[in-house]
Amino acid sequence: MLVIGEKINGMFKNIREAIQTKNKSIVQDIAKKQLEGGANVLDVNVGPASAKQLDDMQWLVETVREITAIPLAIDTTKPDVMEMGLRLAGPGCFLNSTTGEEEKLNAFLPIAKKYNSKVIALTIDKSGIPAHAEGRLEIAANIVAKAMEYGIEASDLYIDAVILPVNVAQQHSPAVLETIKQCKMLCDPAPKAILGLSNVSQGTNCRALIDRTFLVMALTCGLDAAICNPMDKDLMDAMITAELLLGKNIYCDSFLDARRRH
Amino acid sequence: MLVIGEKINGMFKNIREAIQTKNKSIVQDIAKKQLEGGANVLDVNVGPASAKQLDDMQWLVETVREITAIPLAIDTTKPDVMEMGLRLAGPGCFLNSTTGEEEKLNAFLPIAKKYNSKVIALTIDKSGIPAHAEGRLEIAANIVAKAMEYGIEASDLYIDAVILPVNVAQQHSPAVLETIKQCKMLCDPAPKAILGLSNVSQGTNCRALIDRTFLVMALTCGLDAAICNPMDKDLMDAMITAELLLGKNIYCDSFLDARRRH
Repeated sequence: MLVIGEKINGMFKNIREAIQTKNKSIVQDIAKKQLEGGANVLDVNVGPASAKQLDDMQWLVETVREITAIPLAIDTTKPDVMEMGLRLAGPGCFLNSTTGEEEKLNAFLPIAKKYNSKVIALTIDKSGIPAHAEGRLEIAANIVAKAMEYGIEASDLYIDAVILPVNVAQQHSPAVLETIKQCKMLCDPAPKAILGLSNVSQGTNCRALIDRTFLVMALTCGLDAAICNPMDKDLMDAMITAELLLGKNIYCDSFLDARRRH
Repeated sequence: MLVIGEKINGMFKNIREAIQTKNKSIVQDIAKKQLEGGANVLDVNVGPASAKQLDDMQWLVETVREITAIPLAIDTTKPDVMEMGLRLAGPGCFLNSTTGEEEKLNAFLPIAKKYNSKVIALTIDKSGIPAHAEGRLEIAANIVAKAMEYGIEASDLYIDAVILPVNVAQQHSPAVLETIKQCKMLCDPAPKAILGLSNVSQGTNCRALIDRTFLVMALTCGLDAAICNPMDKDLMDAMITAELLLGKNIYCDSFLDARRRH
């Protein structure tokens, strides 16, 4: 599974302050810790409080790029900020994210094509997030078709079925699992399935337990990637063990360490 | 999910010695701890070292029955020991287990019918344990048909797809998950799916991590019951959280405690 580290995000106080004070070492330290934890990609988001999003995204991407060439996920709702982030971050990065709304797809997909980026697309349209798998899959099918129109391969598409907090929308978690399973049948080669994991536990007790349990469940249904916290050792252990039991890692007595090293 | 506590088993040294010295309090203490942990059923097995299996099973069942009326799973390969155990344990208990071999089914199914027991049946035949889901399902289909011949409802059948240790038979874990999913399609109402869970981690490092991860994966595929260790709090927390995310428990902030109390 592809691990996209979520911690470089202006929603978190330490990153928000680092952006305001241009403190590179805070950002770079979090980047390094996520890489050590097993991140394959780093998400980069200036946060909603940023008044100069273009400047802040430039500073944030350049700050991360000083210490690692790993793919970044440029995380913004603004097309101009997205374009600048992807241009600076280089090829093989992730556009995070578009929804399934027509005007969003028309705004973001050409940017992804231009910078040869993978695309994270949420199963949201103008009516919001459907309650059931059928509605999510209908949006996903539309996203796949639109991506093909723009010359983007389905295998470069990461469909995010949008998990809501279990304490307010409990019926959504089975719907998301079903969407992950079925979105692999939309076309061949199939789109990938991704989750913004930690949303499932927003506002609950036992956040880490709920996150890692849902991650194992989603992996069992075919999840390919998650935006999550790679510094949570229990989460990563659960992920590695699920991969082992799906036959995706070879067993050895040190299978946890072995997976982290590769 | 139905939790069948595995700890009253002569394979464990404390129970073996308790049987030899007729020490009731050791057995009753383990029974109570499993009930406190959330067991719905207690497995009872005199162990392979027992020279007087009939006597030992009688003592063990009577010892447990002194403190609880909960259903027991009478765990033996010997039909006479099984019959005596089920007779003493009372109705609504579990025959644990028969394989899919013709002579085993013909020996055990009439006993289950006579004592109105549920039946745990392993997907093993004279050729052993099939490597793939197809072979396991073929045996399961045969078990279902044979049970119907003996007048046992499919919904009283618990099909155990027999998980092998991941360190020696890693390809079996995806096959077991697939069997759990598909055995629900054999008939309507469907047979139940059960696992002897701890076998998956025999001889590995990280036994508890592997057990609880596989349990969550199996629950995601439709598992109904597991023979496992209810005194493992992390295992039970993972199970309860997976049930929550499948919509089988209602969320409340104390969902872990709430599930244990009911």
